[in-house]
Amino acid sequence: MTDSQSLRINGDRLMQRIEDLATIGPHEDTGSCRLALTDEDRDGRDLVVTWMKDLGLEITIDGIGNVIATRPGLLDGPPTLTGSHIDTVATGGRYDGNLGVLAGIEMIETLVENDVSTRYPVGVAFFTDEEGARFPPDMLGSLVYVGGLALEQALEVEGIDGAILGEELDRIGYRGAAPCPGIPPRAFIELHIEQGPLLEDEGIIIGTVTGVQGISWTEYSIKGQSNHAGTTPMHLRHDAGYVAARITTEARDITERMGGRQVATVGRMQFQPDLVNVVAREAKLTVDLRNTDESLLVDAENQMKSCINSLEESEGVIIDSRSLARFEPVVFDTEVVDIISETCSQLGHSSMTMPSGAGHDAQMLARVCPTGMIFVPSQNGISHNPSEHTDREDLIAGANVLLQSILALDAKDLPGAEQ
Amino acid sequence: MTDSQSLRINGDRLMQRIEDLATIGPHEDTGSCRLALTDEDRDGRDLVVTWMKDLGLEITIDGIGNVIATRPGLLDGPPTLTGSHIDTVATGGRYDGNLGVLAGIEMIETLVENDVSTRYPVGVAFFTDEEGARFPPDMLGSLVYVGGLALEQALEVEGIDGAILGEELDRIGYRGAAPCPGIPPRAFIELHIEQGPLLEDEGIIIGTVTGVQGISWTEYSIKGQSNHAGTTPMHLRHDAGYVAARITTEARDITERMGGRQVATVGRMQFQPDLVNVVAREAKLTVDLRNTDESLLVDAENQMKSCINSLEESEGVIIDSRSLARFEPVVFDTEVVDIISETCSQLGHSSMTMPSGAGHDAQMLARVCPTGMIFVPSQNGISHNPSEHTDREDLIAGANVLLQSILALDAKDLPGAEQ
Repeated sequence: MTDSQSLRINGDRLMQRIEDLATIGPHEDTGSCRLALTDEDRDGRDLVVTWMKDLGLEITIDGIGNVIATRPGLLDGPPTLTGSHIDTVATGGRYDGNLGVLAGIEMIETLVENDVSTRYPVGVAFFTDEEGARFPPDMLGSLVYVGGLALEQALEVEGIDGAILGEELDRIGYRGAAPCPGIPPRAFIELHIEQGPLLEDEGIIIGTVTGVQGISWTEYSIKGQSNHAGTTPMHLRHDAGYVAARITTEARDITERMGGRQVATVGRMQFQPDLVNVVAREAKLTVDLRNTDESLLVDAENQMKSCINSLEESEGVIIDSRSLARFEPVVFDTEVVDIISETCSQLGHSSMTMPSGAGHDAQMLARVCPTGMIFVPSQNGISHNPSEHTDREDLIAGANVLLQSILALDAKDLPGAEQ
Repeated sequence: MTDSQSLRINGDRLMQRIEDLATIGPHEDTGSCRLALTDEDRDGRDLVVTWMKDLGLEITIDGIGNVIATRPGLLDGPPTLTGSHIDTVATGGRYDGNLGVLAGIEMIETLVENDVSTRYPVGVAFFTDEEGARFPPDMLGSLVYVGGLALEQALEVEGIDGAILGEELDRIGYRGAAPCPGIPPRAFIELHIEQGPLLEDEGIIIGTVTGVQGISWTEYSIKGQSNHAGTTPMHLRHDAGYVAARITTEARDITERMGGRQVATVGRMQFQPDLVNVVAREAKLTVDLRNTDESLLVDAENQMKSCINSLEESEGVIIDSRSLARFEPVVFDTEVVDIISETCSQLGHSSMTMPSGAGHDAQMLARVCPTGMIFVPSQNGISHNPSEHTDREDLIAGANVLLQSILALDAKDLPGAEQ
């Protein structure tokens, strides 16, 4: 038996698995398209399950298709778990999600081949439909796992292509027997690419994630009046397009007034009738507000609401708003965060604490067990794109931090966890 | 022979012809869809030509399909001409263009049935593809008529559906033998709906049009960088959508700084990839600037250019601009404008002078002969829409002003015209 602190994962094997999985549902040379519960997702699942079986792990599949592979420990009880997802967006890269699952398998293979036992079982999971790109909302599988959404309701979700989630789960053979909600793990750590530019910008290898930003998505539908662009004096206009532009600049202004970690984005925008010489009758846009602090996020929402009210008044338009998503910020377990930071020091990797700007399965698991996340750099902050890239040494560093953090968690008595 | 000053058109007959023409290419009960050189346009042309023939008029069709029907005068020479167009946009109303042509026919029928002779020939024309909705640019037929575009070039124009203008002209049987450019008329007056809200707002029946606004259309293509809406700090963004919004608000700001007759519209707007949680990589929008004064229009263009330059710098984006259309303002003949105003007084109709915010065939004819226009009110300023509406009494008032203005022009020796 090897000294567990000197254990390191096999980088070549990890890179080979990333490569092998990326070739399923290939997209533009370097990327993948494996929308949840499609044939491509099934093929990806089959490959990953084969690797899990090759390691002799015990595999459970639950009613929403979440797959957990567990290696027994010296003691019984729920596993110290890692994992992520293997579904992708339509124009996905090869690291988003996949890294966390394949590094988890690599971690367990490292334990197996070095004959290192753990006190508690150790597991690796992939959760169904994290991207939500086919079946909304995102993080659906982990949401159901932690009891945030009833299984029956989730199975009825209709996809963007009209397919029903439960039927697709049956079709690809991944509706399992394990109950939902699932048994809370002892603790959970997810390794993921940052999907943002901060680590690269700071020249740091590992992000120790302290929590996930709260998210507020609102769609605004503006009803104005269609008019001739040449013949209608400015003071007689009710220009839905102009109002949409004002909302967009207000989003930026809010971040400038608030500073700190407040971000705001108008990513979608449509005009009707969308003609050069016609004042827009209707415009539709989305506003994405995020903050790590719930009270500040509410403040940003209120500033936007007051802008909306004043635009209705001044421009003589009607603005309907519809909430598309609202998540409060999630704060990860300080003990888990500290263990990850200490592990980075021990392994000699630079690290910084940071919030996650994107949503992850870990934020769902945080509802039921001590949870943390490890980020590795994303080149140019790009993700959801075939050109998504993380350097090999950073991927390996992340996987080793995962391995050693899980071992450190295994060695610790966690007051927050069911021992 | 009747006293020509007491002549009035037959309102029922005019309304019936408007109704009959509107039933060709019907669209949503009250509107029409007769895109230029389609089967529907051919059927509309055939009906109008039948009416022209029934009056015994001499009909010429030129190489671009413009149709002119002429009634001889006591003297030879080019006609005092009226007319407009009978093609429509895809979602057209029943008055835009059609009114000017059918009121012209009604005017001549009134002369015929009352046996009133004119000194000079009197004619009514409809020009090909005024809307430009199928074959760009708009006012194409009258542009070719006045020599602003070579016939050969016009015949090769490709439509939005891939059709070639010359082939479609042959197909519907409207490529005529009369030469282009055509013989300049003695003078030209076009009756048209206002397509704006000013007359209705002022409670006035007749607009005496003093000229046409200059038009500057520019398309801006903004290249920024696609990024995750949650993970990318505001200061690291190159948000094409935000820049598009700033250009849109600048368009409004320009009009507020300049005041007067300056108008500005952003009618088209597209984001790429147009997703809630992705900072837009690209945005495309159009800016429509109009002024009746060329130097002020240039001033507005320069203000927009300087905004574009400063946004490129401050936001780190690349903005390509492409001119889609640029027309200098057109000033109509003061003698023709005065005759129309005097005619309104004599007939007891309220009138006001005003510029046209929209483009019309008359602005092309103004290049070759003394020209003016008569506007009647558009309910709510709406046009290019099946709900386009002008009250019956206003339509009749406009047609009578046209009749009496043409007669006044006929009686006058015009220094600017070829007598």
